[in-house]
Amino acid sequence: MRPENRALDQLRPVTMETGVSRYAEGSCLIRFGHTHVLVTASVDEGVPRWMKGKGKGWVTAEYGMLPRSTHTRNNREAARGKQGGRTVEIQRLIGRSLRAVTDLKALGERQIVVDCDVMQADGGTRTAAITGAWVALSQACAGLVDQGLIETNPVTSPMAAVSCGIVDGTCRLDLEYVEDSAAQADANFVLTASGGIIEVQATAEETPFSGEEMDELMRLAKKGIGELCAMQEAALA
Amino acid sequence: MRPENRALDQLRPVTMETGVSRYAEGSCLIRFGHTHVLVTASVDEGVPRWMKGKGKGWVTAEYGMLPRSTHTRNNREAARGKQGGRTVEIQRLIGRSLRAVTDLKALGERQIVVDCDVMQADGGTRTAAITGAWVALSQACAGLVDQGLIETNPVTSPMAAVSCGIVDGTCRLDLEYVEDSAAQADANFVLTASGGIIEVQATAEETPFSGEEMDELMRLAKKGIGELCAMQEAALA
Amino acid sequence: MRPENRALDQLRPVTMETGVSRYAEGSCLIRFGHTHVLVTASVDEGVPRWMKGKGKGWVTAEYGMLPRSTHTRNNREAARGKQGGRTVEIQRLIGRSLRAVTDLKALGERQIVVDCDVMQADGGTRTAAITGAWVALSQACAGLVDQGLIETNPVTSPMAAVSCGIVDGTCRLDLEYVEDSAAQADANFVLTASGGIIEVQATAEETPFSGEEMDELMRLAKKGIGELCAMQEAALA
Amino acid sequence: MRPENRALDQLRPVTMETGVSRYAEGSCLIRFGHTHVLVTASVDEGVPRWMKGKGKGWVTAEYGMLPRSTHTRNNREAARGKQGGRTVEIQRLIGRSLRAVTDLKALGERQIVVDCDVMQADGGTRTAAITGAWVALSQACAGLVDQGLIETNPVTSPMAAVSCGIVDGTCRLDLEYVEDSAAQADANFVLTASGGIIEVQATAEETPFSGEEMDELMRLAKKGIGELCAMQEAALA
Amino acid sequence: MRPENRALDQLRPVTMETGVSRYAEGSCLIRFGHTHVLVTASVDEGVPRWMKGKGKGWVTAEYGMLPRSTHTRNNREAARGKQGGRTVEIQRLIGRSLRAVTDLKALGERQIVVDCDVMQADGGTRTAAITGAWVALSQACAGLVDQGLIETNPVTSPMAAVSCGIVDGTCRLDLEYVEDSAAQADANFVLTASGGIIEVQATAEETPFSGEEMDELMRLAKKGIGELCAMQEAALA
Amino acid sequence: MRPENRALDQLRPVTMETGVSRYAEGSCLIRFGHTHVLVTASVDEGVPRWMKGKGKGWVTAEYGMLPRSTHTRNNREAARGKQGGRTVEIQRLIGRSLRAVTDLKALGERQIVVDCDVMQADGGTRTAAITGAWVALSQACAGLVDQGLIETNPVTSPMAAVSCGIVDGTCRLDLEYVEDSAAQADANFVLTASGGIIEVQATAEETPFSGEEMDELMRLAKKGIGELCAMQEAALA
Repeated sequence: MRPENRALDQLRPVTMETGVSRYAEGSCLIRFGHTHVLVTASVDEGVPRWMKGKGKGWVTAEYGMLPRSTHTRNNREAARGKQGGRTVEIQRLIGRSLRAVTDLKALGERQIVVDCDVMQADGGTRTAAITGAWVALSQACAGLVDQGLIETNPVTSPMAAVSCGIVDGTCRLDLEYVEDSAAQADANFVLTASGGIIEVQATAEETPFSGEEMDELMRLAKKGIGELCAMQEAALA
Repeated sequence: MRPENRALDQLRPVTMETGVSRYAEGSCLIRFGHTHVLVTASVDEGVPRWMKGKGKGWVTAEYGMLPRSTHTRNNREAARGKQGGRTVEIQRLIGRSLRAVTDLKALGERQIVVDCDVMQADGGTRTAAITGAWVALSQACAGLVDQGLIETNPVTSPMAAVSCGIVDGTCRLDLEYVEDSAAQADANFVLTASGGIIEVQATAEETPFSGEEMDELMRLAKKGIGELCAMQEAALA
Repeated sequence: MRPENRALDQLRPVTMETGVSRYAEGSCLIRFGHTHVLVTASVDEGVPRWMKGKGKGWVTAEYGMLPRSTHTRNNREAARGKQGGRTVEIQRLIGRSLRAVTDLKALGERQIVVDCDVMQADGGTRTAAITGAWVALSQACAGLVDQGLIETNPVTSPMAAVSCGIVDGTCRLDLEYVEDSAAQADANFVLTASGGIIEVQATAEETPFSGEEMDELMRLAKKGIGELCAMQEAALA
Repeated sequence: MRPENRALDQLRPVTMETGVSRYAEGSCLIRFGHTHVLVTASVDEGVPRWMKGKGKGWVTAEYGMLPRSTHTRNNREAARGKQGGRTVEIQRLIGRSLRAVTDLKALGERQIVVDCDVMQADGGTRTAAITGAWVALSQACAGLVDQGLIETNPVTSPMAAVSCGIVDGTCRLDLEYVEDSAAQADANFVLTASGGIIEVQATAEETPFSGEEMDELMRLAKKGIGELCAMQEAALA
Repeated sequence: MRPENRALDQLRPVTMETGVSRYAEGSCLIRFGHTHVLVTASVDEGVPRWMKGKGKGWVTAEYGMLPRSTHTRNNREAARGKQGGRTVEIQRLIGRSLRAVTDLKALGERQIVVDCDVMQADGGTRTAAITGAWVALSQACAGLVDQGLIETNPVTSPMAAVSCGIVDGTCRLDLEYVEDSAAQADANFVLTASGGIIEVQATAEETPFSGEEMDELMRLAKKGIGELCAMQEAALA
Repeated sequence: MRPENRALDQLRPVTMETGVSRYAEGSCLIRFGHTHVLVTASVDEGVPRWMKGKGKGWVTAEYGMLPRSTHTRNNREAARGKQGGRTVEIQRLIGRSLRAVTDLKALGERQIVVDCDVMQADGGTRTAAITGAWVALSQACAGLVDQGLIETNPVTSPMAAVSCGIVDGTCRLDLEYVEDSAAQADANFVLTASGGIIEVQATAEETPFSGEEMDELMRLAKKGIGELCAMQEAALA
């Protein structure tokens, strides 16, 4: 049995609240159960130096966890003087995923920086971050269109992310922390609403798993991401 | 006229929400108008190495701002690889203020780390942080008493903080950002409910100010802190 | 046509030379075409502090590129004062992959550090590193058995890695640099000789790809990894 | 009784020696008893990038302690790779104080960097630094006038700093180290010769103190700073 | 007796292999017995900012050791986040030595970066690096002449380096590790083929040595460097 | 002609003042003309971790320059967050030189840290630092004998350092800055009073120099160091 009797292919209760930041051009507070991530999208009229003069924009992401977002306190990365390997890995993943659904030419020579800050962590923070980031990015881009700065919204496709895994021999959608820490395999999927693959990262925790299990994890992800994309659409409406 | 017709000695609308973190031993989401600070207090059974064996505890604080808590985005300190001078200064102030109202002997050999993270900044973030930190610390200490780990609550006195300043030649309580950025003088007060001084930091922005103005700022601070301490008591009740 | 008329499912010429380091307990110079990686496995009698007393060992990896291993010179990470995000990501992947085929209990309380240094880079350095790392690790572990320090070799399974990708609309095995930089999708597979999944990382470069393409990439990877595992066995013989 | 029978409102023997550096545009070796601080003011024809084109200059300060300026050796900040929180706090205070008495427009687009290096520390190093910094800055600015680079000296007002504190229940002027380490409260005042407030930082060490005590500390500070400003004038004559 | 019956004035077997890097403009894999150093010379069309517009070029060097080039593994400098003092010292020496035989005007406004990476270390890595660096630099410069980018090869003189030392009371040429670690004195010589002095660094390990011993070390160095310069000429032929 | 008509083999006016620090166990303010270095020797009852239990002590050195010790201001290394290559090189040289004349067994398990801080720089700061460091170290060791902590002074031999160089074709003793910056060769010698060699570092600036010139530089150094050792003896008397 999963915690709170969730079905194997059932998401936790998910909410997406937009416009939560008074200052950011786009923002979304996304909750997957007890996992809460605050995402802001900041428009910067200018691109990094290495991109200047190419007639294209850039989308990048940063990720952080509040020190006590977790069960026990983690040291603050700013105080340690560097971002950990996990953080670096996650923010690269978020940025790549967003750029895969953004027409950088249509964005023009400006940069959007998406900040994903985990307020509370109960598993699946990176996939919640991506899902919320898509909302904040879309909102910021819509604003650019509204202001007449660009003609069409450069976000090319709905997209969301979810984690799946194998726990106690069963494939499950949207692992929460107690499941995640006991998983035999852990996979993060970033897919478009229509099931196009943007990124798949699957990892065996202790022993290898099979191609059939991989297929089942993919099937669960498609189901969950379909539901998430519907919620994103509703949140932006 | 002050924004939104505030009186010179009037606080912005203040709210304090406790227990907002699922995991932290104490927590408070404090709002001074559009300034929002999330504070958690984490109990750590153990003290820093240089304090071991002294039969005393320790209280320390860290402070951070979300990159887009402000009007324009600031670089993430974790990404830059160091905390800025302002951050260091503020977290030292918060820690000192909390220790001034904590009986470290009564706390026993354990450490409480208070994290103050600014969600949204509209002036007065450090004083909001101190005021909320007192609430989170008190809640965490009450929990230690409830669990029988210590006998009496080591927090010795109610305490809060507020900023005052001189704007357009008038002394004002609780500056918001537009006032703060135009102030001739800026002062932060950390006082006990009964007006005892814990910390005063007053700074002339461009030209020196007088002792009489200093007295008026102190008077305003006492009034505001009296009100804040009443709200703290209510929030913890 | 692929460079040098390679078939879509054909590896580049691969060689694995063991025992290339006079000092390291295990070593392998692995070449995938013009990609050359020098791998050493160093046995350290002791484990990191956080693992002490658990009766288990640890395997970890570090990765680096010589500054002029690439077409144009890259800055030396030691001189810049930090490892880049890509480096961090890769060395975490190598370490995870090795641990997935190592019985850490059987290893005993000792650590094996695997260093993968890229001498020359022509695409696929991370998968070449993993494939060579398995050889160096196996050799180091065999040495521990020979010296009577442990009873059985803790490496539980043959394992190798390869990159596949979609270039000009065709799925291809073992991309070299000119292909990699033009790929629509790029996927790294770490599999056991029998096809068990250890890690899959698939990324769309500009536009999403389909589940059918993913299946074809997996099929190519299985073929290539089967061949690589045979070469590993030969190299160790 | 205070050490060496000092009266409660009596400064330690203070000396200010100007022109001690062969190369710096302004310099002052200031001694408060056994506290010795070497201050240099360096004129830099150019301003930091963020100030360019504003027709204004800038004054900034740095602070350091020689490793063995203190009773026991402290680690060298350059070797540790970062300046400590206390150092950052102090150098920000010195810079702010100097800018409060400098007409940055009159200075023109150039920067003056004031370095305060503690040769020997016996309490009150930051206030000695500020007092000496005013002398070195004034000398450097006078040199700019002499060279015809600017028309009027941009230093607008005499200014000095002193620490006061409550020790054994008595308010005292200019604490030395043995007093400072036993103080119930510690306050640093930066005032103009005529008593205008530039900065006040008052801190309770263990228990809060009263408004009356604050007033008495301010009274002592005014007396001491009056005397220091007279010495500054003599030193520059 | 020296290891392997070497005579006191005999070099270890030395080989120099050029063109070992597919991408670098110049390269040399140099071996002094078991000490192996891979050197690349990278031409960069541009100079550091502080050299711009002077009509001169620049030659600089970097040095690193693979973590397991030594008997026991050393931590990777990139992972530690800084280059150690020894590394810094060595790469400054290499750069200075190369610039002493390079006509920077003749090089034109371009930079050559020489990377010396120690694959295996058995004593004398810095002198092997300098000797190999001269070969790689010469090759890169010859390429510039061949391409018509410059008229004459800016390398003004043949040059090589060797270590000598006093071991068991005897002066010896080209110390290997077991000798080096037992030496009473250790000296590194960088000389031109005709015996001109570019750099001498001689260090007593425990007790001072005499001027006569210094003379004998110099005599040995001249002999060895004569032989090395002949090998360099052959390698480039 | 040399500046101020100095003879080629003449030192600048040298003074050594001991006991200049109120707190340090040994100290010396040494002046070579306008080069002024403040040296302190701090006794630390304990050795670095890697030396524990060996029954031996340790001597180490750190070096720094005040930002405005030079003609134009240099950035503060503590603010830049790292010590430069030149600093690292110099402090390693000072430490090595001191250890070469210290019987570490006789010192017992304690460490002496020698801090050399350049107050004013006019050439030859590293050799002035070594010469002054020997005085401060000797004084600190004498104090250990006086307190009965060790039986004999572990400093085994008088020792000093001086720079020599070739300027305008003539070999000269003790270069000052204007000579140093125009030198064809620059050499630093660390010798015992009786001429024993501790360290020689000779560098050609632009073109190689001859063995005969090296011999003349050595002759000058011996003369100068003989005089310096006599002054050291006098300073300690």
